[in-house]
Amino acid sequence: MTFLLKYGIILVMKRIFILIQFLGTNYCGWQYQNGLKTIEGELERAVFETTGEEVAVHSSGRTDAGVHALAMPAHFDTNTRILPQNLYKALNAHLPQDIRVLCSKEVDQNFHARFDVKEKTYEYHFYVSNSPLPYYSATSARIAEPFDFERAKMALSAFIGTHDWKGFASARVEVSSTVRTIKDISLTKTAENQYCLSVTGDGFLYNMVRIIAGTIIATGQGTIDPKDMAEIIASGDRTRAGKTAQAVGLVLKEVKY
Amino acid sequence: MTFLLKYGIILVMKRIFILIQFLGTNYCGWQYQNGLKTIEGELERAVFETTGEEVAVHSSGRTDAGVHALAMPAHFDTNTRILPQNLYKALNAHLPQDIRVLCSKEVDQNFHARFDVKEKTYEYHFYVSNSPLPYYSATSARIAEPFDFERAKMALSAFIGTHDWKGFASARVEVSSTVRTIKDISLTKTAENQYCLSVTGDGFLYNMVRIIAGTIIATGQGTIDPKDMAEIIASGDRTRAGKTAQAVGLVLKEVKY
Repeated sequence: MTFLLKYGIILVMKRIFILIQFLGTNYCGWQYQNGLKTIEGELERAVFETTGEEVAVHSSGRTDAGVHALAMPAHFDTNTRILPQNLYKALNAHLPQDIRVLCSKEVDQNFHARFDVKEKTYEYHFYVSNSPLPYYSATSARIAEPFDFERAKMALSAFIGTHDWKGFASARVEVSSTVRTIKDISLTKTAENQYCLSVTGDGFLYNMVRIIAGTIIATGQGTIDPKDMAEIIASGDRTRAGKTAQAVGLVLKEVKY
Repeated sequence: MTFLLKYGIILVMKRIFILIQFLGTNYCGWQYQNGLKTIEGELERAVFETTGEEVAVHSSGRTDAGVHALAMPAHFDTNTRILPQNLYKALNAHLPQDIRVLCSKEVDQNFHARFDVKEKTYEYHFYVSNSPLPYYSATSARIAEPFDFERAKMALSAFIGTHDWKGFASARVEVSSTVRTIKDISLTKTAENQYCLSVTGDGFLYNMVRIIAGTIIATGQGTIDPKDMAEIIASGDRTRAGKTAQAVGLVLKEVKY
C-alpha cells in the first residue's frame, strides 16, 4: 500500500485488476505507439479521463495488430475514490465500443498482470473458402480449399508437452529461453467449413500461436505430413514450420494466475 | 429466351442466378432506396458497372437494415457476353468487401428468385451478457441475464406446423394470408453464453423470425411461460408474443427452390 499526502488528504494507492474484451480490427495491437490507435493507448486515455491520472496499464502480454481478446487481464494503480468494482463502468464511458472493460476489482499491490501469468488459452478461428466471406471475416481467417480436418487433427499430439519452440517464433524474438509447455491443444469443426484451434500453455513466444495455427492448417491442406510434426518441432527450424497465420483469426480467450 | 437486335448483333438475354453473402451492418436492408446504401442498390450498381446494363436484381426476399445473409439467392437478366459462371468474379470487382457474390450460373427464363422459393432457413444468434461484448457484436444480439436455456427449449415444439402467424408479424404487414408452415426449429448452445436459434419454413411474414426469436428469448428470460406458447400463437395477438429481437442477430442461411 502506498500512502500519498495530497492537499491534506491521505490517498490510498490501489492496484486495480481489469478484464478487457476487444475487437482488434481497428487497432495497431496492444502496445502504446505515439500517434497510432492501440488498445493500451485507448485504456490509458480512458483512465486519465476517468481519474485525471497518467498511469501505465499493464496487460498479461502484448497482442499484435488485428488480434482480438475475449478476456485480457490488466492492472494499473490509481488514487481514485471511485469504488474498484465500479471503475469498469466509468472506464467504458471513455472507451470506444470495440473495447470494453468487463469487470474491475482491487488486488494486492504485489499482483502483476504479466509476470504472474500461469496459463494462457488462445483460440484460432478459420474458415475454408476460395473467396472471402464477409459474414465470418471480422474474427476468422480465410484459408484456401481443400482442408482435410482428420489429417490436420493427426498433427496435434506432437505439440503437447515441453519443447524448445525456437522454430515456432518470429525471427525478431529475443528471449532468454524458447522453452515453453503446451498443456492442451484441440481442433474442432464449429460449423460447415469452419474450424477453431484451441491452445493452452504456460506462455507463448512472439507469433508462436499463429505459427502453430499456420502449421496445422498447412497439414490439413496437405503441404506438411502430420507424421513429420515431432521432428519439425525438434528441428527448431523456422522454415520447416508453416506460415504465420493471419492475425484476424486469433483471440486471447483466457489467462490464469 | 428473349432475342434483341442491337447494332446488328443478335443478343441472347440470359437469366442469371447468383448467391450473395453479406454483412448487413452498414446497409439499410435489401431494398433499393434513393440516396441510401442498400444491398440491392450495390448489386444493381455492380451489374451496371460490369455490363453497362440497368437491371433489376430480384432476391428471394427483402431483408431489414442490419440483417445478414450467408447465401441469399437472386436473379437478373443480362445480355453480357461474360460467361455466366464467371460473372460473379466480375461483379465482386465492383462490390464492397462486405457484399460478395459466391457463384453465378444461367437459369431458365421462368425461374424467379422470390416466387419460386420452397423453403427458407434463418438463424438467430444471441449472447447473454449484461454489457455489450465487442467480439460477438458484429453478428450476434445481446440479451440480458439470466437466460434459462432448458426453459427456452421447452417453447420450441409449439412453433412446429402450419399456423396463422398474425400475432408474429409486424403491424405494417399487408399480405393476403398470414398462414405459414414452420418445418423445423432448434435452439443450440454454441459456446458459453452463446446461442443459435435455427428456423426453417415455407416462408415468413415481415419480422416474423425476429418476433419468434424475441418470444423464445423472453421464455428463457422468464417473462413468458413455455406452457402458454401454443395458446399465444393461436391467439393471433401481437401483444402476447415477445419483442422483435434486434436485427444484428439475424442471418438468412439457406433458401431452397
